[in-house]
Amino acid sequence: MKEKRTQNFICTTDFPVAQTVQGKIRGFQTNGIYTFHGIKYAQARRFHRPEPVKPWSGIRDALSYGFVCPLLTQDTPSCEALIPHRYWPMDENCQYLNIWTGSLDPQAKKPVMVWLHGGGFSAGSSIEQEAYDGENMSRYGDVVVVSLNHRLNILGYLDLSPFGEEYENSANAGNDDMIAALRWIQENIRSFGGDPENVTLFGQSGGGMKVWTLMQTPEADGLFHKGIIQSGVIEGFLDAGEGDGRRITEALLEELGLGKDQVKELETIPYRQLADAWLKVSPGLKKQGYYVGENPKPNDFYLGDPREVGFRPHARKIPVIIGTAFGEFDFGPGFPGKYDLEEEKILEILKEKFGTYAERLAELFKIAYPEKCLLDLLSLDNVFRAPTMDFIEERSKSSESETYSYVFAYEFPMDDGKCAWHCSEIPYVFHNADRIPICRTPGVMEKLQDAVFGAWISFARESRPFVPGLDWKKCGKDEEQVLVFDETCTLRKNFDHELVRLHREATGPFIMEEAENLQH
Amino acid sequence: MKEKRTQNFICTTDFPVAQTVQGKIRGFQTNGIYTFHGIKYAQARRFHRPEPVKPWSGIRDALSYGFVCPLLTQDTPSCEALIPHRYWPMDENCQYLNIWTGSLDPQAKKPVMVWLHGGGFSAGSSIEQEAYDGENMSRYGDVVVVSLNHRLNILGYLDLSPFGEEYENSANAGNDDMIAALRWIQENIRSFGGDPENVTLFGQSGGGMKVWTLMQTPEADGLFHKGIIQSGVIEGFLDAGEGDGRRITEALLEELGLGKDQVKELETIPYRQLADAWLKVSPGLKKQGYYVGENPKPNDFYLGDPREVGFRPHARKIPVIIGTAFGEFDFGPGFPGKYDLEEEKILEILKEKFGTYAERLAELFKIAYPEKCLLDLLSLDNVFRAPTMDFIEERSKSSESETYSYVFAYEFPMDDGKCAWHCSEIPYVFHNADRIPICRTPGVMEKLQDAVFGAWISFARESRPFVPGLDWKKCGKDEEQVLVFDETCTLRKNFDHELVRLHREATGPFIMEEAENLQH
Repeated sequence: MKEKRTQNFICTTDFPVAQTVQGKIRGFQTNGIYTFHGIKYAQARRFHRPEPVKPWSGIRDALSYGFVCPLLTQDTPSCEALIPHRYWPMDENCQYLNIWTGSLDPQAKKPVMVWLHGGGFSAGSSIEQEAYDGENMSRYGDVVVVSLNHRLNILGYLDLSPFGEEYENSANAGNDDMIAALRWIQENIRSFGGDPENVTLFGQSGGGMKVWTLMQTPEADGLFHKGIIQSGVIEGFLDAGEGDGRRITEALLEELGLGKDQVKELETIPYRQLADAWLKVSPGLKKQGYYVGENPKPNDFYLGDPREVGFRPHARKIPVIIGTAFGEFDFGPGFPGKYDLEEEKILEILKEKFGTYAERLAELFKIAYPEKCLLDLLSLDNVFRAPTMDFIEERSKSSESETYSYVFAYEFPMDDGKCAWHCSEIPYVFHNADRIPICRTPGVMEKLQDAVFGAWISFARESRPFVPGLDWKKCGKDEEQVLVFDETCTLRKNFDHELVRLHREATGPFIMEEAENLQH
Repeated sequence: MKEKRTQNFICTTDFPVAQTVQGKIRGFQTNGIYTFHGIKYAQARRFHRPEPVKPWSGIRDALSYGFVCPLLTQDTPSCEALIPHRYWPMDENCQYLNIWTGSLDPQAKKPVMVWLHGGGFSAGSSIEQEAYDGENMSRYGDVVVVSLNHRLNILGYLDLSPFGEEYENSANAGNDDMIAALRWIQENIRSFGGDPENVTLFGQSGGGMKVWTLMQTPEADGLFHKGIIQSGVIEGFLDAGEGDGRRITEALLEELGLGKDQVKELETIPYRQLADAWLKVSPGLKKQGYYVGENPKPNDFYLGDPREVGFRPHARKIPVIIGTAFGEFDFGPGFPGKYDLEEEKILEILKEKFGTYAERLAELFKIAYPEKCLLDLLSLDNVFRAPTMDFIEERSKSSESETYSYVFAYEFPMDDGKCAWHCSEIPYVFHNADRIPICRTPGVMEKLQDAVFGAWISFARESRPFVPGLDWKKCGKDEEQVLVFDETCTLRKNFDHELVRLHREATGPFIMEEAENLQH
């Protein structure tokens, strides 16, 4: 017999193996963390509700990430230095989840954190960003991390309900998949050392929207207990549009040369063809304000945007962390030598952009962010921050709500100082900052990561986010306690409301299509 | 002015910037290594020869990997625990290279190592595997690392020359791209601290084949000076097939509903359509032995497989390291408890597979690999090793040739012990073993990496591979000095010839299509 050695990587014919309701799966262990990639949690016919997978005998390998959902269009990689991506083979058969855990003991009952990826409801995947890897979060947070793929875009959100009962929830099939995953977790997570009674959803951008759409979904009640919404409330984005799926579907059928009675054909037509037809017919309808099927659509399953219909009583009681990044969609190049500019020169530049608003904005900015360069007013986000303030206000109407607010305001060492962009907090959340070169500022990276990561983990563990030395309280009525994450973290109360409202007014109408071109 | 801090990551508006013949580009610096991703080195119309890119003014960002060449079929990820992959958006406009270097001083004259990726001539990319990242190789080897994408499959190797002079080299357009990249390196690598007079090509699988096809290409003379061929000689693989491109092209035209005079249409038809047509018509022609355009085809540009046409005089003098992995295409599950089996039981299993050859093979195996489990005879590769022996023999006919031979024979800690598979040496070559969980065996990883990495680097630096304590000599006539890389590295002379020849005979005909299903 060959001498056994302590190994960092362990994967033998029968270890580590976990028992799920459907059958056994084998993952691998590295540095004490058990990892299972590509676990199939459901199966679904196109436009239909997901179903449990069939049981199997023997042991299946869970050593490779599963397919991700096909996308409408291909990305053109850019800004990879800001957000390193991972792409992956695509297939409709995409209901896969990944698990990282420090224990396979059913008694371990570790908090479970479920990552919902960004990309609106039409793009992205559970592994789309390098920073999404769950190993470090599991190790340093002593939690079970789960990430998942689900149906997206027309596969996940095209409303065919007018054409037959079998399509009753096709307008929310993607969210339906998430619920199937959450059910799978309820049934199986004990075998991975997790506590099914302490499940926290966290997600960024579209992932944040997924958190609150699931809060507004009765079927999800009891499947999760807390939510973290990172840059997940944006002006206008979830307007479903007028009407049901009849109009877009008829336009699709026509474009594809199918008759009105041939909706069934849409189930089997190659995805690429369907997607190309949608890309052709949807912009016109959308312009006219009609529903085109790119986002969840309110129905009996999903009750709608809480800023319009209010929070469901159950949703109100779900503790939430919610926040935004300082600069969000500002991915553009930096301003050379911004710290060397005289204030006079900066005001000149601000006036070019903000006209008569410039001076008042400058005053308000200096109060809200006294430590920052005044020129950062050019980068300040308002399309996430303003509706997030509304969201918090709506929540805070109820004394039952626990809502913790933050702004991620760190300035990164690029282009003479780059304000925090959309996604930039993710490496810190996952304790993966050292995997992302732009985060590796000695003396800062660890401190900032400890603050962000520590808050997320303590929230998952104890339902209250904790940042050492700060008394981060939940928001009250008209009292928003904001944790500003930066090189030095601070608590600021109602600190930027006037600034953001005026900035919103000054920057003029927000056009999602323009912002989408900037999204990563 | 904001206090400047020593930062691990540096990327300001004007640093690091390198001057190329066409214009300036900006990358980033991390931990002392300058990185430039996605530098466009050429442009090309489909089926035409590559041309230099147009000059630009100002500074272009080189912060994101460029498009990779479109593939005929999509991968189904599997065995990711063995070989972690990276996929990427695809486009024909794929002539991009990446550079990692410790200096931008034109006087630095560091050795240049150019990675040619695997995937036959039809798949893969410069970033397809996690292990391909050049940062550590550049840092720990003090070399300039370059990796590149080029045209693949029908975009890179479909012979249209019978249909017009403009297509004269479409049968080798992919290799033509590589030469354009090597020319770009000659013109520009000084600006990245590299020595254009010391360029080493290295590649694995298809990448190894690229090395020796470029050795047989007169236009490449002087553009590189040394070659490392890892698992790059395989039985039968580069048989171009009978005839020129007439037959496959006519079949394509017919399948696409085009006339014989409409070859020009193939230049603009969407790639997916062209690829689907090729996938449909090529298997039949291939079965009949005809050329179908998936590999380089001998012509005035590429002179052909040296085992058939001999080495060109120039190629003979290019120093080469060449070798294989012990198990190559054995990606299957391991044999539970193989080290606990009695020899009698093992012989029984061997007889099932090898029949009357079993006993003699066992004898020869014990002589060649006395330290290994006898059951590994099931995993032993011969379809690479046997033709590699032929390749070395052909080279060694000339006393001018310097050929260094190796077998990578490390057993990995998976499935009770897994023989080295196709690609498994790559993490050690790139000094990236600690990025690949399966390589992280304490006490072994560093030692094995030092040996492999040190040999590659010293070869690039001094034209002679060096492994401490071993006198790795070039192969002589009928004298193959083989460096066996393992937990303990050893030198063995002509140690496995009879074993491999007999093993080849015993395993029966090799069918590439079956092996392709196993390739990763």
